[in-house]
Amino acid sequence: MRKSVDSVAIVGLGLIGSSIASAVRSSQAGVRITGYDVAPQVREQARQMGLADRVADHVQDAVRGSDLIVLCVPVGAIEGVASSMSGSVLPDSLVTDVGSTKAKVGAALRKALPHARIVPAHPVAGSERSGPAAGSAQLFEGRWCILTPEPDAAPEDVEAVAAFWRSLGTKVEIMSAARHDRLLAAISHVPHLIAYSTLAAVAALEQQQGQPIMKYAGGGFRDFTRIAGADPQMWSDIFLSNREAVLETAAAFRTMAKRIESLIAAGDEAALVEQLESARRTRLDLCTDA
Amino acid sequence: MRKSVDSVAIVGLGLIGSSIASAVRSSQAGVRITGYDVAPQVREQARQMGLADRVADHVQDAVRGSDLIVLCVPVGAIEGVASSMSGSVLPDSLVTDVGSTKAKVGAALRKALPHARIVPAHPVAGSERSGPAAGSAQLFEGRWCILTPEPDAAPEDVEAVAAFWRSLGTKVEIMSAARHDRLLAAISHVPHLIAYSTLAAVAALEQQQGQPIMKYAGGGFRDFTRIAGADPQMWSDIFLSNREAVLETAAAFRTMAKRIESLIAAGDEAALVEQLESARRTRLDLCTDA
Repeated sequence: MRKSVDSVAIVGLGLIGSSIASAVRSSQAGVRITGYDVAPQVREQARQMGLADRVADHVQDAVRGSDLIVLCVPVGAIEGVASSMSGSVLPDSLVTDVGSTKAKVGAALRKALPHARIVPAHPVAGSERSGPAAGSAQLFEGRWCILTPEPDAAPEDVEAVAAFWRSLGTKVEIMSAARHDRLLAAISHVPHLIAYSTLAAVAALEQQQGQPIMKYAGGGFRDFTRIAGADPQMWSDIFLSNREAVLETAAAFRTMAKRIESLIAAGDEAALVEQLESARRTRLDLCTDA
Repeated sequence: MRKSVDSVAIVGLGLIGSSIASAVRSSQAGVRITGYDVAPQVREQARQMGLADRVADHVQDAVRGSDLIVLCVPVGAIEGVASSMSGSVLPDSLVTDVGSTKAKVGAALRKALPHARIVPAHPVAGSERSGPAAGSAQLFEGRWCILTPEPDAAPEDVEAVAAFWRSLGTKVEIMSAARHDRLLAAISHVPHLIAYSTLAAVAALEQQQGQPIMKYAGGGFRDFTRIAGADPQMWSDIFLSNREAVLETAAAFRTMAKRIESLIAAGDEAALVEQLESARRTRLDLCTDA
């Protein structure tokens, strides 16, 4: 049996990293938290907020000797950060992350830290806001955290990371990285892509027509596009890191949109109402589950 | 000059009709309100809520002698309802509506009520909920109401309807029905279409893969699809009534989505980040304007 997690290093103190720090602080008073962020002003802010027991100025210093290392950096930065800390990661260190894509991220972690015990994870929680000030100890409460260990991962390592996430309030599910990536493409990545492209399309129409459109938008449009308020660099990383599933899922969504449009074009009211009704029911189920 | 509006007939007491009744009640204590709904249980509910000074059991009885008649029925029902009340509408009665599409609705009103003074209107406000219990006197506060009078409408009629809407808290804008319909396709109709089709696509993927997807969805997905909680019959009516602009706009949105997808496929990170950043700025402008 692996010993319990008594110290945690959190690398990256943005929305997710700072929320993990706050949640560990409030749920596991005895656990020692070391934090690190690449941006000096974020480290300073973290110190002022008292997010961690110690905020290190170097990533190697932050991770050295910690029972659990949690990488909370953008998907596109994971490989570089993992490589830069490899000299300070002990052979039996337990390493996890919070990346929104898992196949490429898992491979990058295994490549950069070949001797570490790696259990990739993705807490399905977030906000369109970013930075430590947006963090919250309650961010993970009742949400899912999906673990995507390789088939040969040690069960006690998987259980240690699962227990860590449960202690922060998440429900934990284990699946393959490939399934995670297809799943997230559908419920998160492609919806983000559509929200961004809706805004881009409306801006283009405004320019084409030479008349304002956006200013008339109501609350529905604002909710629909809220997720496009998220950080562009982070989302570019995610789209590129999950390229295949994103493009495949976007095509599947498009096929469905075209099917509904063809009912509109044909004026087939009965089939159209039935299709909308069935879609709406899907969402009501979601809200009941929640 | 047209005399001021001292009595209003509200035909249809769903979310919008009941909200108008409440807003008139709270902003213009002297105005007499008569209400009507085709559903006996809604009429009963409206009576119990005291929404109107009088709730009539027949539409002809409701509209007779009112200075202003406001049709708050689904877009697809407007022509039928307008025809059924035509015998009770005096030649100089002022008639408006709240339909989400304006070209077909305006034509239907003019056909059914050839002698009335018609000023079609669309308060850009709503909710995915429906029925009189969901109504609110504040629903229109600070929102837009778009009027689409024909070029030959009497200016005093247009001003009377504009003044009515301003008194309920909306900003008023006047434009052609064609422009309204293109505008609304972009900020409301096609987003609704996409939200419905996203849910339908996810349901189809779940069935295809034989594994749950929906249950992992977070707050972002819920916001993105909130508008698909709206009434399917109402939205089928809207899509069919604004068919041309909806299909054209959906195609324009699709072209933009494909352009962003091609950046992902090509791995063109710099262009992708720039595109997302520009889309995001469009939305920040919107939120600043609001």
